[in-house]
Amino acid sequence: MRILRLITFLAALTAYCLAAAAQSQLRGTGDLGIVIERANGSVCVVDTSARAILSCVEGFGDLSHASAVFSRDQRYAYVFGRDGGLTKVDLLEQRIVKRVLQAGNSIGGAISDDGKLIAVSNYKPGGIKVFDAETLNQVADIPASYGADGERSKTVGLVDAPGRRFIFTLYDAGEIWMVDFAEPGEPQITKIGRAGKLPYDALITADGRHYIAGLFGEDGLAHVDLWRSPARIERVLDGYGKGEAKMPVYKMPHLEGWALAGGQFILPAVGHSELLALDAETFKEAGRVKVHGQPVFAIARPDGRQVWVNFAHPLNDTIQVVDVPTLKVVHEFKPGPAILHMEFTPRGHEVWVSVRDANKVEIYDARTFEKRGELEMRKPSGVFFAARANRIGL
Amino acid sequence: MRILRLITFLAALTAYCLAAAAQSQLRGTGDLGIVIERANGSVCVVDTSARAILSCVEGFGDLSHASAVFSRDQRYAYVFGRDGGLTKVDLLEQRIVKRVLQAGNSIGGAISDDGKLIAVSNYKPGGIKVFDAETLNQVADIPASYGADGERSKTVGLVDAPGRRFIFTLYDAGEIWMVDFAEPGEPQITKIGRAGKLPYDALITADGRHYIAGLFGEDGLAHVDLWRSPARIERVLDGYGKGEAKMPVYKMPHLEGWALAGGQFILPAVGHSELLALDAETFKEAGRVKVHGQPVFAIARPDGRQVWVNFAHPLNDTIQVVDVPTLKVVHEFKPGPAILHMEFTPRGHEVWVSVRDANKVEIYDARTFEKRGELEMRKPSGVFFAARANRIGL
Repeated sequence: MRILRLITFLAALTAYCLAAAAQSQLRGTGDLGIVIERANGSVCVVDTSARAILSCVEGFGDLSHASAVFSRDQRYAYVFGRDGGLTKVDLLEQRIVKRVLQAGNSIGGAISDDGKLIAVSNYKPGGIKVFDAETLNQVADIPASYGADGERSKTVGLVDAPGRRFIFTLYDAGEIWMVDFAEPGEPQITKIGRAGKLPYDALITADGRHYIAGLFGEDGLAHVDLWRSPARIERVLDGYGKGEAKMPVYKMPHLEGWALAGGQFILPAVGHSELLALDAETFKEAGRVKVHGQPVFAIARPDGRQVWVNFAHPLNDTIQVVDVPTLKVVHEFKPGPAILHMEFTPRGHEVWVSVRDANKVEIYDARTFEKRGELEMRKPSGVFFAARANRIGL
Repeated sequence: MRILRLITFLAALTAYCLAAAAQSQLRGTGDLGIVIERANGSVCVVDTSARAILSCVEGFGDLSHASAVFSRDQRYAYVFGRDGGLTKVDLLEQRIVKRVLQAGNSIGGAISDDGKLIAVSNYKPGGIKVFDAETLNQVADIPASYGADGERSKTVGLVDAPGRRFIFTLYDAGEIWMVDFAEPGEPQITKIGRAGKLPYDALITADGRHYIAGLFGEDGLAHVDLWRSPARIERVLDGYGKGEAKMPVYKMPHLEGWALAGGQFILPAVGHSELLALDAETFKEAGRVKVHGQPVFAIARPDGRQVWVNFAHPLNDTIQVVDVPTLKVVHEFKPGPAILHMEFTPRGHEVWVSVRDANKVEIYDARTFEKRGELEMRKPSGVFFAARANRIGL
């Protein structure tokens, strides 16, 4: 009887152990990524070397307009949902590690340069909250209060800056703030100044030097050179759409894809079927590119030689590719209905394109434009690769 | 008896399985790196988040002047030894996966943008060889033959360029060549042209656009703009040391650390106690910085705001930090005897410094200059972090 129990115990232990071993296949994490399945509140973990889905994980809540950042070991993604959910997902085990509902309505986040702090940009209640990246315990709550009544502004364009800092923009207040966690204790908050009317999104350059906010309420952009002390806001591209008929804006462009490419920033114009080229030194307009429709993302290939552009509804079945030195469209193709996002592999050999209404992510050679693969997903939107962990501002 | 055998079998299986599980602790690889222990032919695998050594692995042969690249999943490092050894090491299991002695005398290598090809730069026999990154099987052998007799030149400055290309420089021939693996079948070799006398090292900018070779036999540098078609060589900074007394060169500077920082390249001058600033647009001299000694590495912090410099013997106990906008030395300290290399964490919050003759690697906050940690290693030299996998030219 004792022997039988021993055998049963050993057999169970072996079975458990073998199951655990199968689960814990060693693998690197540098080539992993995630794709947001918007309609299902799920996230698919993908392998960009194998061009494959490892597994799709449910339970992320409302993922409309979701985005993500990655831990510095590239094992975890932090997914920012629209419902105020901040969810930490393990890419190796493909499971949710922790999820907190930290606000009522959110719009993206950032991770500090040391990988220790996660900041989330909230519409409601307006402000940012900061969490410990390990535990998701709250570290700081920074209400975006403004004006005499202390009303709270929605926040947008939240990014990391070098030195455990975050920069963000107050949509309703039209201001840009910086919060600095370099010293232990309470963070230092600096109200950099007034950006203009209705700043709707922002970006920071890959070197963490220039923060640029787009304005919906005015023609122009707000620029902060963070190498200047004290930092202050300057208006750039003032009146870039002046004199032309105002056009309806079908979808607000995203600014994140902007990149310094060949000494210029290439960025989508709001409400125009154009890209604007901005000289990276003088911050003056350096040219324009007529494109197929109202651009949503204008994303530079990592070498900066080309910029890939997708468009607002109803022209969102098309991608155009712009050659940076000549500012000419050199390629156009139609991957399918509702192209929502594009993400390049870190050194730019391939690009993943989410085609929502075809329920597919398509993978292209970023030079020859040949299709290299295709993955079935349910209403895929944002595509985020783990290499973002090692970039300032992503 | 049968029962006893069953018990023994199950017990053995359980023991094996538990041992395997202990070995195969799941972990991300984005924050790993290696440090070369030069004197012992060993490589220490390090964790930059924990600031810890995971394990040191022996058996790499002659590691004087060794360097490394990383697989795109950031699980493997490829170490290039001086003895022609190419060794693939598993960072997760901390063991050598494969080692080939592919030449008699080598100097560095590169990995293609898709992560599939490893190229090695050889002195003897002069040329480059290319290997499959998975198996280390040879894929191509490209002799650097020149002149009427078909003599073979040492090769230096081998880097990856976007589109499965490699660029390298022929030391004896004074030429720059490109080899293109974009199409299946035989690689396309392009002899770009004549660089000048004794090109000793080269780099490619982070966007893969500009390839620049330093010359030991002449005052000046050779520059190739790879966005131009056909690519051709132009001389820049011609005669930067002219009129001054020639100084003995204690150690040839390395070019790899150069970075585009604030619109300038900052680079070590050969034989002078100076850094040169090169305007990134015009490629003209934009300024000079007097420094403590003959610079060996001038490495930009990832945000480009500062450049950290170490020096040739006998002044190699000192690091100086240069502020890029003002071109002024803003900090100087002496970590210890024989500082051989510096490597920043990918977003620049910390920097690892190898202090060979103190048998230590020291870890500093890259902003406050406070020491954050210290690891004992045996004659440490090169420090390489896995995030290089995701950068062009590293």
